[in-house]
Amino acid sequence: MAPIRNTRVLFNSVPQGYPVPGETTVVDHSQTLDLDAVDLAGGKVLAKTLSISIDPYLRGKMRSPEKKTYNQPFEIGKPLYSHAVVKVLRSENPKYKAGDYVYGVFDWAEYQVFSEGLDARVLPPDSGIPWSVYVGVAGMPGKTAYYGWKEIAKAKKGETIYVSTAAGPVGSVVVQLAKAEGLKVIASAGQESKLQFLRDLGADVVFNYKTTSVEKVLEEHGPVDIFWDHVGGSTTNTVLAHMNTFGRVVVIGSISSYNTPQAEPIANFPHILYKRLTVRGLIVTDHEKEYRDAFYATIPGQIARGEIKYTETIVRSLDEAPQLLLDVQKGDNTGKAVVILADD
Amino acid sequence: MAPIRNTRVLFNSVPQGYPVPGETTVVDHSQTLDLDAVDLAGGKVLAKTLSISIDPYLRGKMRSPEKKTYNQPFEIGKPLYSHAVVKVLRSENPKYKAGDYVYGVFDWAEYQVFSEGLDARVLPPDSGIPWSVYVGVAGMPGKTAYYGWKEIAKAKKGETIYVSTAAGPVGSVVVQLAKAEGLKVIASAGQESKLQFLRDLGADVVFNYKTTSVEKVLEEHGPVDIFWDHVGGSTTNTVLAHMNTFGRVVVIGSISSYNTPQAEPIANFPHILYKRLTVRGLIVTDHEKEYRDAFYATIPGQIARGEIKYTETIVRSLDEAPQLLLDVQKGDNTGKAVVILADD
Repeated sequence: MAPIRNTRVLFNSVPQGYPVPGETTVVDHSQTLDLDAVDLAGGKVLAKTLSISIDPYLRGKMRSPEKKTYNQPFEIGKPLYSHAVVKVLRSENPKYKAGDYVYGVFDWAEYQVFSEGLDARVLPPDSGIPWSVYVGVAGMPGKTAYYGWKEIAKAKKGETIYVSTAAGPVGSVVVQLAKAEGLKVIASAGQESKLQFLRDLGADVVFNYKTTSVEKVLEEHGPVDIFWDHVGGSTTNTVLAHMNTFGRVVVIGSISSYNTPQAEPIANFPHILYKRLTVRGLIVTDHEKEYRDAFYATIPGQIARGEIKYTETIVRSLDEAPQLLLDVQKGDNTGKAVVILADD
Repeated sequence: MAPIRNTRVLFNSVPQGYPVPGETTVVDHSQTLDLDAVDLAGGKVLAKTLSISIDPYLRGKMRSPEKKTYNQPFEIGKPLYSHAVVKVLRSENPKYKAGDYVYGVFDWAEYQVFSEGLDARVLPPDSGIPWSVYVGVAGMPGKTAYYGWKEIAKAKKGETIYVSTAAGPVGSVVVQLAKAEGLKVIASAGQESKLQFLRDLGADVVFNYKTTSVEKVLEEHGPVDIFWDHVGGSTTNTVLAHMNTFGRVVVIGSISSYNTPQAEPIANFPHILYKRLTVRGLIVTDHEKEYRDAFYATIPGQIARGEIKYTETIVRSLDEAPQLLLDVQKGDNTGKAVVILADD
């Protein structure tokens, strides 16, 4: 077979604020690949990419390598990478065979050659949900919700939870877990279409944080026993003042600080003492061993049966991925942002 | 017997910044009491005050009643109150008999009439340590150290702890618990005499935070697995950036914010996420049931045998109490601040 194009999205330069399509990331069409001729000696696998996850946290990897954080930075000139589902075309690795669907961390490229997939797992071929969902509510974001719920939220029936960015793939699962366990759910998002989704999920109090003050809503509907924090900055500051005694703050993200040099500072930190709060950060990969099996045994089935709902913003080409990456930073997507390159 | 004077310290007005002796608190000599004639009908107890605790947190009770926090405000015109040891003179309450030494929350007054002592406990008459120590390292401050250590610090041998205001009655117990369990201890205070005390306790790195930057010390001797936080504000902000992954922050106080209208804000809040920290506030009274018996079975004996050391700043009259209350807010005392009105 003749070589074919292998489109990739490369990290080109460190953004100052928001990532800029065509500048901080570039789509590269120059690589070609002969699928039959790729040498897989030494346990390598050739796979076709089906769906790629676009997540808020990726902005943190678009940084200068001198700046140390919890994860590795992207490398200038190399493809971006994130959670994805790929289909194995050929394999010389005993762990994977042709036809396998593999979830893991993969390059933003139409085709992949890999040996050890990071965080990789062969998915069941017939679970009844689209592959894109395996990078969404049945993937890393769903796990984030599930692991944080089990590990930190420690919810009790009748308690009140406030979920910020509640219409996203993490927040929407948290809303549904909370409703299933009998909590009162306060949920916010920044677009009318997202608010309707939150109402559909059964959230008790739904509001647009761009037009209604968090302060006002929590004064009326708080205090809050659990704050599911994706945002940081002034939102977190306000919520701390409206927490109930012995409340838990599940710190999952800090989108308000990802695209600015300095996060908005938290003046209400002393409320952690006054209310005896537990504030904990969670990174999903730390808890795979404890909760992964329970997650896969529970959540994909609930999704297939329609018991857990989701929404997606889909693009069908890597050419559109850099813009969607930007939209995710600005909250302009709805639900899980995903690049679907092939359905099978 | 003729009536005798019963000097008291009254809460007179809400301080704007630091409490002002003679203005926000006043010493009142006007009350008299006939010790033989006081009516104890209905289960009351008459007691002589031996020692009274002066604590940083008391500033938080010197507020307007509209401002709700975790505790009750002092009442204007009424005596201040805090942990104290009193000796029962007469009793019509079956829980207490003449000659009993009782630890609990009592008025800042030479004599007390009470029925149900708040947080009250009859102390052993012969434990070999002075009564003043029962409001210090063998009392509420020592309990704060012990309960927080058990509940939140979850120390492992070889870890590094940073204790701010380490020469105080809470911090100094934490330093000693940490050294006993094989931790590396970084300890700070604001006076040379306090630094020597910290060296005597075996702290590995001792520094004066007024002349040496926390940042610099932690860069050299960090990262920190456990931060014992009495301070809040810019100190806490700096330490968050020097925490180790999975570190614990034990929030016990916020002295930097007690005497100002607004606490210094925390810009490094996102480090809670990046380092997956657990930040928890602790108020000692919440954990009495879980840890009190273990505390009294362990700590007073260790103090009596000299295994736990302490220092005190003592005044011997209620006339001097308002100034010591101010000194505690400014950190001008060394070790436990206590008013000793009688040794027995």
